[in-house]
Formats: sequence, structure tokens, C-alpha cells
Amino acid sequence: MTSAKGLEGVVVNQTHVSHVFGEEGRLVYRGYEINELAGKASYEEVAYLLWKGHLPTRAELDALNQQMRPLRALPDNAAALRLMTRNVDPMDALRTEVSLVGALAPISGLATFEQALMLTARFPTIVAAFQRLRNGQEPIAPRADLGHTANYLYMLTGEVPPENHVRSLDTYLVLLADHGMNASTFTARVIASTESDLCSAIVGAIGALKGPLHGGAPALVMDMLEAIGSADNVRPWVDNALNTHQKLMGFGHRVYKTTDPRAEILREMARHSSTPEFFALAHDTEEYGIQELNRRKPDQRLYTNVEFYSAAVLNSVGLPRDLYPATFAVSRVAGWSAHVLEQMIGNRLIRPQSEYVGPQGLKFAPIEQRNLAPVN
Amino acid sequence: MTSAKGLEGVVVNQTHVSHVFGEEGRLVYRGYEINELAGKASYEEVAYLLWKGHLPTRAELDALNQQMRPLRALPDNAAALRLMTRNVDPMDALRTEVSLVGALAPISGLATFEQALMLTARFPTIVAAFQRLRNGQEPIAPRADLGHTANYLYMLTGEVPPENHVRSLDTYLVLLADHGMNASTFTARVIASTESDLCSAIVGAIGALKGPLHGGAPALVMDMLEAIGSADNVRPWVDNALNTHQKLMGFGHRVYKTTDPRAEILREMARHSSTPEFFALAHDTEEYGIQELNRRKPDQRLYTNVEFYSAAVLNSVGLPRDLYPATFAVSRVAGWSAHVLEQMIGNRLIRPQSEYVGPQGLKFAPIEQRNLAPVN
Repeated sequence: MTSAKGLEGVVVNQTHVSHVFGEEGRLVYRGYEINELAGKASYEEVAYLLWKGHLPTRAELDALNQQMRPLRALPDNAAALRLMTRNVDPMDALRTEVSLVGALAPISGLATFEQALMLTARFPTIVAAFQRLRNGQEPIAPRADLGHTANYLYMLTGEVPPENHVRSLDTYLVLLADHGMNASTFTARVIASTESDLCSAIVGAIGALKGPLHGGAPALVMDMLEAIGSADNVRPWVDNALNTHQKLMGFGHRVYKTTDPRAEILREMARHSSTPEFFALAHDTEEYGIQELNRRKPDQRLYTNVEFYSAAVLNSVGLPRDLYPATFAVSRVAGWSAHVLEQMIGNRLIRPQSEYVGPQGLKFAPIEQRNLAPVN
Repeated sequence: MTSAKGLEGVVVNQTHVSHVFGEEGRLVYRGYEINELAGKASYEEVAYLLWKGHLPTRAELDALNQQMRPLRALPDNAAALRLMTRNVDPMDALRTEVSLVGALAPISGLATFEQALMLTARFPTIVAAFQRLRNGQEPIAPRADLGHTANYLYMLTGEVPPENHVRSLDTYLVLLADHGMNASTFTARVIASTESDLCSAIVGAIGALKGPLHGGAPALVMDMLEAIGSADNVRPWVDNALNTHQKLMGFGHRVYKTTDPRAEILREMARHSSTPEFFALAHDTEEYGIQELNRRKPDQRLYTNVEFYSAAVLNSVGLPRDLYPATFAVSRVAGWSAHVLEQMIGNRLIRPQSEYVGPQGLKFAPIEQRNLAPVN
């Protein structure tokens, strides 16, 4: 028996899909360093890479687009989304509508590549439709002549987006598309390991990604930067926060013990897409935050994580703050489904043990004879 | 680094809630052997035990009922269920409606006891409403003067159920309410460990329970028994199945290496509630199946699991076969929520590692220069 709270350091399976080399600050998708792909390959190419193991040829990419684009539309006219008011959390709306898509579509049995395409094609439509509906607007139908990322932005606004927005968001979607055995991917694999269907696995993964310890916190980075206000307030604000044991948002990661390579790419993107004032604020917060965190906790090696500059980049393409986690999901669904497809090869039920530390040997007493004090 | 495919033998955390002593064939809830509770404590008492750590006094049980019963009704008039046709899998319907309940109700932030009550109160209403709607009938409102189990059966049929049905189903619900670190409970804890909300955790657990390797297979036991047909066909049918490498349904378990104590209790219930012919068929299949499995695979120690006689018992109270997994969920939601509440005490993100066995160092090539053959 091995005991490992949080499963830290426990290898649950082998994978060909992606890996985080935490000590070296490297992220690899199917053999490619993330720097080899970011800004060069489109989201569709990277999704294909994650699913199939190689970057598509022109013919393969054309076939992918031909198959995926007709799958974007919601066949039920966004019926479940219409049940949800403007106060609903976008991740709850996404979770519910994806669950309905799985219930209504023929997503049953073991996961297939076609189902992975379908869910990946549909995520942006769901998020955009929810955003429109909660603002009292009708959803905008997807446009088959636009790429995945351009179409997402188009469905949000009804306007063909500027090229620099498409490029920024597409790079973001490439950077976040997979990340080793993170908690939501692991959730998807645990669910799939029972031989449940792909949709059940993805719905579970959305729920895990929603958590603030995973994907639910990038908006908190923007809240923090707003609270700091300007670059000249960074030092007093950070000092005060750390002195009063508040958490700095967007710092630290379970696996990376140096800079997250995605954070470095996002920083350069934010440098070009933000105002100089905002970038100075973010950059000074990063530098002083790292300095102070590592001075106070030298054994933890804390750096900015992917959420820190994600917020700046998503802000620059016009996404509202509370859609950041759902946009993270729009990206990660490719990785989730690639991992589920891999799990189905030589699958083994993922079922750990727990250590029982409660009492034993208690005897049942009829209700009228029970003590008011708890038995244990 | 520890490597354990399927996490077999890896202890992920300590728990006070329940434990399976697999070598001894024992199941303990909060210190009570399952035999101490089955047929004695009601489902509500056992749910309270799992959540709070002690069996309720009369005053505590009264307070629980007063709090839970008004939470049974679906506030949205089963709107999401009305979107689902009669061909929808009941587990998909449950997953979707529970997700909607979480989106519309104030189930956000870290899990609370009140949220656990709410979801547990609502599960039977959802399953019964779906069953009515797919048969073209309006859902029946819950009745606050009926217990949890009686009300479930009442909402399915519109009639107050006979006492022996209530007793059988209530015992079934007690037996299945928790079971150590099984795959769906583990799913719920992984999701909750990101500090996501209770509803996200429960929705993920439903998806895991749906899998045939977990809770999705009891209907297959009935299919198998129907295919065998009668007791005098057991030996030729089982011999042929094993000779042709077919799987016997309802045998074997990852943790139990002797008889599952729940299977023994359910067998005695089935003995009384089934026709003599059906019980002879089931019992002979069990005995001959165990004999032959252990003769052919003596190292595996295979016995009937909880699904084997669950099917007979659920059949005897009039539940349609495809509602067995959802009825399993009606029971298990108490355990899931108890585990999520426990996870929130000293929570640590559950995030294992994987071993990367794919290529490295691949260089990006523009799409027109890619080979037709995959790179790896």
C-alpha cells in the first residue's frame, strides 16, 4: 500500500498525449515543445495533433474542417440555455448544456474520435449563445467560412473579429489545450475508466475546471490588478497582502518549479495587446510578487502561472471576465477528449483506496434509545 | 514516484465515512457494520449517519425531515427533463437535470450540509419525473407526509406503495448509500478538491456511476438471467459462456475477495420477494457461476457482487430495468455528498502524475511541408 494525499508524485498511467516537465519549465504536446506550436499552428491543427498524434497534412486539415464545422450548431436551439437566467455561472451553463447535448445526441458507448470532434466544435457555440441570451440577445448561428477561433468571437458579437484578436485568442487556445494529468483531465479519465461515455467524462471535467484551485481563478487576477490600480502601488499592496497572509492571485503551481512556459508566451502577447500602463502594472506585480514570495518561502519556488497573463490576453480580445473559465474549457476540451480516447486503450478502472480512520464495532440502537451526544 | 495503473492499492486519503474490508467481506458506515443497519435504520437515518457521523436522535431525525421534505420539489417544473425524449438514457437525464438544479439554485462556493440535503431530497423527484414524462404522463408532486423511499415509489406510480415494497427498496437504498473510495465517490472528491461546488462534484459522480464497470450493469444481470431462462439451463449456459470467453454478469469486484455482505442481504430479500422459479434460477446461477469461475481462475476469488441480486430486488418493487442505475444514484448521493463534505476538511488538490512515453524534440513544419506519414 502506498499513501499519498492529493496523489502528489503518484503516476496513474502512461501517456503519449502531453507532459509537463515541471523542473525544467517545459510543456510538450505529442513531442512538440509548446513554443514550437504557439503562434505557428492553429487551434484546429493542435487539436488534431492531440487526438491523432501528428500535425495534420493539408488534406487531413481540410477533412477535419469539413467534418467539424457542421457540428458547431446547437440542434436544440439552445433550449437548456434558455432556462438559465443572467445570474447563472457560465461554467454551470456550459456543464448543463453539454450534458444535454450528450443526452440528446448519440453520444453513448465508449468514446469515439467523431464524438470528440462534435463536443469540441460545439463548446464555443454554447458559451457564445449563453453570453448572448443572458444579455437579452438571440444566439448567432455559426459561420462555416470562419475558423474555430474567429467563429467563436463572431458568435459572441455578430461581427467578424479583427485579425489580431483572432491571433491572440487562437494562441491562447493552443497554449491551454492540454497540460498533462491535471485535475480536470484526471477527472475525465476516472469517469471514462468506468467505460462511461465521453460526454459524462467531459461534463465531469468542466466541473473540476470550475474550481478556483484549477481553472476558476483567472478573473481573480484581474480583480487583484484592479485593486492594486497602478504600477506605483505594487510594492505597498503586495507587502500588505503578504503581511496579512492574503493569497497573491496567479502565482504558484503544483508541478512547475520554475516559470510556466505558457506564462512567458502570454506575457509577450500581453505586452503587445495591453495598454503600457496596464502592462507595467501586471509586470511589476509579477516581478515584485515573485521576489517577495521567494524571499518569504524560499523552499516553494513560486512563479506566475498561466492564469496571470491569461487574464490580460483574454481581456484584450474583449471577453468579459466571467467567461474566462468557460473559454479555458473551450480550449481544454481537445485535451480532455484526447486523454479519454487514450484511456480507452487498455483501459483499467481507476479506483484507489482510502484509509479508514473512523470507529468500528458500533451496535445499532433503536432511535428512542439513542443518546443525545454523538456516538463518535 | 510511485506507479500504479488504475491506482490499485494506492491510498488517496483518510476517511471517517465508510470502508470496505475486502478480505473479510465487511462494509462499515461510520463504525457500523452494514448488517447492523440494513433492515433496521431507514435511508434518512443512514444518510444522516454518513453526513454527521452518528445516527440521529428522534429530534434530529424530525428536524432532518422538516428540512429535507420541502426540498424535494423541482422548482423549474422539470423544464430540462421536458427537453429529453423517451430514448434518452435515464442517467443522462439525471446528470442534466441535476446540473440544471445546481445552475439555478444557490449551489455555489464550497459544499455545505444544506446543499447535500437538497440534492439528496431531489434525486428521487428527478428520476420519477423523467420516468413519467417519457411515458407521456405529467410528473407527480412529492408528498410531504411520506418517507423518502415511499415518496419515490409514489411519484413513479401516483399510488401509495405497499409496505413490503417500501421496506425492500429502503433496505436497498441503505445498502448502496456508500462504499469506500469507489470510482464515482473518488470522482466527486477529485472535483471537490479543486474547490469546485457540490453540484459539479455530484454531476461528475453520476457520469462515473453510469459506466458498465461501476453502476451501469445491473440491467445486464437481468438480461443474462432471462437468457438462461430456467434453473435447469444454468449449467449448459454457464459452461458455454465461459468456454467462449463471455463475461458472467454480476460476478467479481476490485476490492472484495470473498462474498460482498450486501449481496448476502440482497439474496435473502430476493428469496422472499421473487417467485420460487426466478429465485431458483438466480441462486443456481450464482452457485454454479462461483464454482466454475473459481475452478477456472482460482487466483481471482470471484463471487457475486452487489449488482447480482440488486436486479432481482429492484425488479420485485416494480422498477423498470433501465432505472436501476439511476436508483443506485438515488441511494449513493448521500455517500457522495458525505465524502465531498469530508474532502473540504483540510482539502488538498488531487492531482496525480503521468509518465510521458511519447516522442520529444519534434520540430514544427509548415502544413505544406508535412509528410503524409505520421511523425510518430
